[in-house]
Amino acid sequence: MIRAHVNVFLKPDVMDPQGKALGEALLSLGHKTVKRVRVGRYFDIALEGDDPEQARVELTRMCEELLANTVIENYEIRIDPAQKA
Amino acid sequence: MIRAHVNVFLKPDVMDPQGKALGEALLSLGHKTVKRVRVGRYFDIALEGDDPEQARVELTRMCEELLANTVIENYEIRIDPAQKA
Repeated sequence: MIRAHVNVFLKPDVMDPQGKALGEALLSLGHKTVKRVRVGRYFDIALEGDDPEQARVELTRMCEELLANTVIENYEIRIDPAQKA
Repeated sequence: MIRAHVNVFLKPDVMDPQGKALGEALLSLGHKTVKRVRVGRYFDIALEGDDPEQARVELTRMCEELLANTVIENYEIRIDPAQKA
């Protein structure tokens, strides 16, 4: 079993009003060190198999097909290192 | 400047209908290796300062106060290693 963590987030030049509002909320709560917040989605995915390279290929296809809107979003795939052994 | 990545996700015993629907959608698209999908939120946060330990304390407070609903959600904080130097 492979465990993967996928983060999908807006490209740097895409406006993120939700992140902006959240940053302002954190500042108003006293978190004065906050400079910028960007909001995205997180997917925790378990896959059959034990080949991390094959899993990465499959996860990339999932991101391109469904998980991310690649016009405005990028994605990052992490395979749980405990499953590489 | 510190760059942090915060993932907020449902506790294991909390139902996740969105993740279930997504898992079924991936299966129907032909991703037959998918066993389980859980959906969460991702925050990319930039903070003033250069002390990763202090940033972690501050980020934990942000999660407890605003970013996560700790009744039903857990969170994971990663500080960008490039910023530790």
